[in-house]
Amino acid sequence: MPAFNVITVGGTIDKVYFDAASQFEIGDPQIHRVLAGAGVVDFVVTPLMRKDSLQMDDTDREAVRQAVLASACDRVLVTHGTDTMALTARHLGDVGARTVVFTGAMQPARFLETDAIFNIGFALGTLMSAAPGVYLTMNGRVFDPHKVRKNRDQGRFEDAG
Amino acid sequence: MPAFNVITVGGTIDKVYFDAASQFEIGDPQIHRVLAGAGVVDFVVTPLMRKDSLQMDDTDREAVRQAVLASACDRVLVTHGTDTMALTARHLGDVGARTVVFTGAMQPARFLETDAIFNIGFALGTLMSAAPGVYLTMNGRVFDPHKVRKNRDQGRFEDAG
Amino acid sequence: MPAFNVITVGGTIDKVYFDAASQFEIGDPQIHRVLAGAGVVDFVVTPLMRKDSLQMDDTDREAVRQAVLASACDRVLVTHGTDTMALTARHLGDVGARTVVFTGAMQPARFLETDAIFNIGFALGTLMSAAPGVYLTMNGRVFDPHKVRKNRDQGRFEDAG
Amino acid sequence: MPAFNVITVGGTIDKVYFDAASQFEIGDPQIHRVLAGAGVVDFVVTPLMRKDSLQMDDTDREAVRQAVLASACDRVLVTHGTDTMALTARHLGDVGARTVVFTGAMQPARFLETDAIFNIGFALGTLMSAAPGVYLTMNGRVFDPHKVRKNRDQGRFEDAG
Repeated sequence: MPAFNVITVGGTIDKVYFDAASQFEIGDPQIHRVLAGAGVVDFVVTPLMRKDSLQMDDTDREAVRQAVLASACDRVLVTHGTDTMALTARHLGDVGARTVVFTGAMQPARFLETDAIFNIGFALGTLMSAAPGVYLTMNGRVFDPHKVRKNRDQGRFEDAG
Repeated sequence: MPAFNVITVGGTIDKVYFDAASQFEIGDPQIHRVLAGAGVVDFVVTPLMRKDSLQMDDTDREAVRQAVLASACDRVLVTHGTDTMALTARHLGDVGARTVVFTGAMQPARFLETDAIFNIGFALGTLMSAAPGVYLTMNGRVFDPHKVRKNRDQGRFEDAG
Repeated sequence: MPAFNVITVGGTIDKVYFDAASQFEIGDPQIHRVLAGAGVVDFVVTPLMRKDSLQMDDTDREAVRQAVLASACDRVLVTHGTDTMALTARHLGDVGARTVVFTGAMQPARFLETDAIFNIGFALGTLMSAAPGVYLTMNGRVFDPHKVRKNRDQGRFEDAG
Repeated sequence: MPAFNVITVGGTIDKVYFDAASQFEIGDPQIHRVLAGAGVVDFVVTPLMRKDSLQMDDTDREAVRQAVLASACDRVLVTHGTDTMALTARHLGDVGARTVVFTGAMQPARFLETDAIFNIGFALGTLMSAAPGVYLTMNGRVFDPHKVRKNRDQGRFEDAG
C-alpha cells in the first residue's frame, strides 16, 4: 500500500492555456510534477475528473466520496477547485479511519507565481500527521470543512460560523 | 502570539549568486517570499544565522537550541542546511510543549526547479498537526531526527538505524 | 529620446488569472518586469489597449498605426496577440525611417514555461539591428508581415505566400 | 546548413548546484531548454568547454576562435562567462562574412529570476539582423567588443573608452 493516494478533481490548480483554442482549460494533473520536484515517492494518483468546481453537482460530489471510500490508502489528498471545495469536503461524511485533506490553488500550478506547490506540500504535511477525519487546508491553515468559507474578494479562506 | 515562528539558520535553501564576487553565498531568507506567495500570514521570522550546515559547530547548534527555547510560539519551524540538520535537531533535546520541525532544500529556493517551496509547505503542515516533539521533514516524509540520515549520493533522506 | 518605445496592445502575453471572477483576463503589461529582469533601461512604455487580438477591429489597428507614427522613438516594439498580429503589422504601411517589430507569446508571460521572455529579447535584438521597416518576430525568426501566417494546429509561425 | 550555430563555453549562465558536492559547478548547456521553450528549431549546438571565464587563458580563447572559424554556419552565437567575454570577443579578429554574437548571464539560467533567457533571445535577434562582424550583447544593448567593459559593482555592461 502506497503512503498516500491523490485524487485529482480539477480546478484552477491544473489550468493550462491552449493557444489553438484561445482559451484556458483544465489540463493534465500537475501533482506528478510537483511531487517529483520534491523527491516524493510512494504514492498513487487517481485522476477522477477535470472540472471547474463551480460546475460540479451532487453527482460529482458523490463520485468524489465513492473514490475516497474505495481508496486502498488510509491517507487521501484531494486536489479540487476552490469555489466548492468545502461543499464537497462536507459531503464526505464519515470516512472511518481515513485522513482526508482537500486543497487547491488560487493561481494555476503552471504560473510562475502560484500557491499550488506550497499548498500541496502543506496538505501532505497535514495528511501525514492529522488524526482521522476530513480537513480543508489553504493559506497555511487547517480548517474544519464545516467552519470555513472562501472570501472571493480577498482571495483567501477564512473562518466561518 | 503568532501562529508559528520560523528560525532561519542558512543552508542551500537561501543561496544566491553574487556576480560581483563570482560566487554563491547564503542571502536573505526566502521564507518571506514563499509564505507571501501562499497567502500565509500570522507568523514571525527570526533570522538567526547564515551558515552552510557543514560549517556549523556545537556553539551554533546550542544557539539554535536557545532560540527555540526562547521562542514565544509553541510551534517553531527551523530552516537549516541539509548536511547537519539531523545533528542540530538531535541537539535540541527536550522541548517541552513545543512542536519543532526542521526542513531545508536540496536546491536553492531561487532556482526554477527547487524543492524549497514544497518542503516549507510540508514542514508547516506537519507543524500544525503533529504532537509536541522534534521532527525532520524532507521528501514528503516525517522523520524522527534520531532515525534518519541524508544519502548524499542519491540526494535524499532515508531511514537510519 | 529613449532608445526604444514599447507599445502594448494586449494578447496572451499579458494574461492573468483573476480568481474572484474565475476567469483569465489581460492584466498589467509584463514588459516592465521582463526588461527589469535583464537590466534593460532607457525605454518608454505606451500601454495602448488590452485586447485579445481576435477581438481587434480596423479601428483598433488604426489606433496602433497612429501610436507608432506618433512615437518620439525611431525604434518601436509592439506586443500584440498572435492571431491577428500579421494583420496589424500589414496595416501600418509606410513607417518612414522607423524600425517597428511586432511580437507576442503563445503562453502567458506569467507562466513558468512561457515563450514571452525569449520573444521580447529576440524582438528587441531585431529592433536594434534591422533596417527601417516593419517586422514580425516569433519562434526565433524574423518575418515579413506579408509573408507569414500562424499555424494554429502546430502552435507556431511559418512562411506563407 | 542550419540557420545558426551556438558554441557554449561555460560561465554563470550554465551553473547548477550539485548537492552531493555541496557546490555550484557549470552543468549541461541550458541553450537547448531555452530554445525549445520558444519553439526555435534549425540550429546546431557545439559544446566546446565548461569554464568560468576568469579561468580561461589564451589557449582557451584561441580554441573559441578556431571553433568559430570552423563553423559551417555564417551566424554564430557564443555563450560565455561575463568576466572575460569582451577579451575573447576581441581575440577573434577578422571573421570574414560571419556574424558572431557573444552573450552570457549575470544570474544562472536555472534561477527563477535570470537574465539568461532574455539575453539569448536578444543575442539571436542581433545575430539574424546585424552585418558581418563580432558583437557583444548584454542588458538589451549591442556593444563593439573593443568599446565595452563589465561594471562589476553595478552588475552591468557599459560603454568604455
